[in-house]
Amino acid sequence: MEKSADRPNKKKVVAVVGGGLVGALNACFFAKRGFDVEVFETRDDIRTAKVVKGRSINLALSHRGRQSLKSVGMEDKIVSNGIPMNARMIHSPNGKQSPIPYGKKGQYILSVDRANLNKELLTAAETYPNTKLNFDHKLQDWSPETGLMTFVRPDGSLEEIKADLIVGCDGAFSAIRKQFLRRSRFNYSQTYIPHGYMELTMPPINGEFAMKPNYLHIWPRNTFMMIALPNLDKTFTCTLFMPFEEFEKITTGDEVMEFFQKYFPDAIPLIGVDALKRDYFRLPAQAMVSVKCSPYHIGDKCVLMGDAAHAVVPFYGQGMNAGFEDCIVFDEIMDQLNEDFSAVLPEYTRVRVPDDHAIADLAMYNYIEMRAHVNSKWFLFRKNVDDILHFLMPGTIIPLYTMVTFTRTRYHQAVELWHWQDRVINRGLLFCATGALLGGSYLLVKNPPDINKLSIPAEKLWNRLLAVWTT
Amino acid sequence: MEKSADRPNKKKVVAVVGGGLVGALNACFFAKRGFDVEVFETRDDIRTAKVVKGRSINLALSHRGRQSLKSVGMEDKIVSNGIPMNARMIHSPNGKQSPIPYGKKGQYILSVDRANLNKELLTAAETYPNTKLNFDHKLQDWSPETGLMTFVRPDGSLEEIKADLIVGCDGAFSAIRKQFLRRSRFNYSQTYIPHGYMELTMPPINGEFAMKPNYLHIWPRNTFMMIALPNLDKTFTCTLFMPFEEFEKITTGDEVMEFFQKYFPDAIPLIGVDALKRDYFRLPAQAMVSVKCSPYHIGDKCVLMGDAAHAVVPFYGQGMNAGFEDCIVFDEIMDQLNEDFSAVLPEYTRVRVPDDHAIADLAMYNYIEMRAHVNSKWFLFRKNVDDILHFLMPGTIIPLYTMVTFTRTRYHQAVELWHWQDRVINRGLLFCATGALLGGSYLLVKNPPDINKLSIPAEKLWNRLLAVWTT
Repeated sequence: MEKSADRPNKKKVVAVVGGGLVGALNACFFAKRGFDVEVFETRDDIRTAKVVKGRSINLALSHRGRQSLKSVGMEDKIVSNGIPMNARMIHSPNGKQSPIPYGKKGQYILSVDRANLNKELLTAAETYPNTKLNFDHKLQDWSPETGLMTFVRPDGSLEEIKADLIVGCDGAFSAIRKQFLRRSRFNYSQTYIPHGYMELTMPPINGEFAMKPNYLHIWPRNTFMMIALPNLDKTFTCTLFMPFEEFEKITTGDEVMEFFQKYFPDAIPLIGVDALKRDYFRLPAQAMVSVKCSPYHIGDKCVLMGDAAHAVVPFYGQGMNAGFEDCIVFDEIMDQLNEDFSAVLPEYTRVRVPDDHAIADLAMYNYIEMRAHVNSKWFLFRKNVDDILHFLMPGTIIPLYTMVTFTRTRYHQAVELWHWQDRVINRGLLFCATGALLGGSYLLVKNPPDINKLSIPAEKLWNRLLAVWTT
Repeated sequence: MEKSADRPNKKKVVAVVGGGLVGALNACFFAKRGFDVEVFETRDDIRTAKVVKGRSINLALSHRGRQSLKSVGMEDKIVSNGIPMNARMIHSPNGKQSPIPYGKKGQYILSVDRANLNKELLTAAETYPNTKLNFDHKLQDWSPETGLMTFVRPDGSLEEIKADLIVGCDGAFSAIRKQFLRRSRFNYSQTYIPHGYMELTMPPINGEFAMKPNYLHIWPRNTFMMIALPNLDKTFTCTLFMPFEEFEKITTGDEVMEFFQKYFPDAIPLIGVDALKRDYFRLPAQAMVSVKCSPYHIGDKCVLMGDAAHAVVPFYGQGMNAGFEDCIVFDEIMDQLNEDFSAVLPEYTRVRVPDDHAIADLAMYNYIEMRAHVNSKWFLFRKNVDDILHFLMPGTIIPLYTMVTFTRTRYHQAVELWHWQDRVINRGLLFCATGALLGGSYLLVKNPPDINKLSIPAEKLWNRLLAVWTT
């Protein structure tokens, strides 16, 4: 290949490894800056391939992702193909539905189709004359010292390229990251959660959505849960999250029905009995991994972004958004440091690691909150208090979900602010509760009630009070 | 090679990968059970090699390690070559030395030489006729499904063997573990601490130890520290632990002297000015990693032990002891489950993972305690309280260090007990303090002192009290 880092008078070569969402978007960012961009993807071109393998959980696009798309002029196109979701719709076991808005009126997240988004981004990258997409190229070897990379093609032939910058966007099981793991002082963790996931489809009814479309539907059931996101074709993709051993306990169609009858009765007619009995066994439950690492770079030649740097569990809807924000953060640092890779790469690690670690932790935290707390009275009470305070003091009290989803507040700062707010609000509530208790006691002493006329027996009342103060 | 898992009427083949401490000890355990044991070591035989590479931090052998050695009849031989250390000897910046015993009278840990211990264990393994040591064998490939392994020899020739059980004892950077990393649902973390270490030698003075030999000498200096362990040749090996950036700040012999003059003045004449200026620059500071993972096995064919499963930072002196205990725990489970690998391996993971994770966390905790808290008055006060309570109620209150070092209490249970004891003791102390305060107040009210005669001004006294109650 002609392109080379060593030849003067040539543009610098940026090799983007991985043609998924973050890789394709990154190609646009680097192409916009005038680099010679080469994208290498192991798989076939998904725009022409017949069978598309890979992950298919629906994606929730929010502010961070949109801002990144905007930077490369793609926001409007993607948004027009998304379905706004204004609120969560909580399905109780008895079939009752209650909406919990995501933010203020007019704030929403978007259900987008992963495959379509990926195709659009690849096409956008290809419109730059200085970008070349190389499909069916499997990374065989590469050197972080020289930037020399070797790829294998399906016919066994090898292709070499020397890059000035290698950008590893090759996902949670990144091949680029393996080289990082061989080096000293690289911190790394991969944590599989005990839950797996399984996707089921809810077809349209009489050509219309089977449930209200502008919601992210949630069936929280403590140790497990189901969610459903709307698609453009008026179907919903339902995703069941459950511990692997629970999945394995269900081995027959009748057991599937029994399970759904018990926990998701309202979903049975909407998915359909036959489809449910069949689709449950189509694929085994899939694993979910949380990956954290540091640093994100080696020298001035290689950097990790997206899931390759920080795979997160899907419970905060921020995996793609964080990956897209990686691109814009890198781009901002490129501006600040005049595209000097030897300065940009360490700065990117310094700035981005704490934020990515924060969102990985938050997603893990929400893994519990979403299936358990979202049902609790305390959660709903605190959410209402937070919303009222946010309305009264919009600059001081901002719900965590709002900071994460509808702003570009740095993730780790959002977490710090959240802890601070939490302390302040809980102290305020304690203060109010103590005041109310003292006031109530005063009134009780002044006007003692006739104990025999209480609607709750005194003993029960005492036990309840005791329970409140001891928990 | 003739040996094979598929041939009936042949003994089962156990391939131990790694001929270090845990590999060699494990070979003895499996040989004792009558398996056909093949040990594969990448390096040359350290008993005949001229240059021995690898780690050289001194080792502190304690109860768990000794029990494991005892099981294969090696305890007495190893103990006779160790130097008992009855206490820590704390060196203050002003040169003052204060001993803090490790346990009760007669309880001690042993300073042993890593290379000598390894040699003894290899020789012990070799005395079993059913054991073969294969040096200069580098693992090239292996299958957890079939047990087929391929090794490369220095001349490039390949050697194949089919094992019934593959035991990965190949250290913190285990090649066997790489195969685990490729599989789904394998949890893994490697964390490098910001500190590096450097070894310096303190020679004998007039043929005698330069300091009291039966102590582990510690110079705690908050963000960094130095320790020294005695050797049989009457030298001490000093190990300096310090953040990498601090190591890098010192670039000249004069800066070394300035640094030692400030923090370790009493060590300068003992190490020697010339040696210090020279040896500080002999090797760069070495990194330390903490590795945790789970599960420890794949199917019924492969299991990880020792540092390959759980590298720990060296601050609890338990790395080798935990690795040796792995062997004895596995051996105990082999007894319980009649050497049925398909049952033994999952049980080993179930039993051992929480204990190894607990000791990894404890070592990380001691990484702070040893260089900082060991100096504090609260630490010494609590240690005295714990020791007195241990003396009064030896079955109920046992100091954590004692449980970890002088018993085989499961590590994770030791931690649970420790937390429980800590709560009980702190509550007791609070109770006593409150009682003393009330009693004191009563006396003060009964016999009010003349405020002008107080040796501390009343305001200062009040501030101190306030500080106690608000922290």
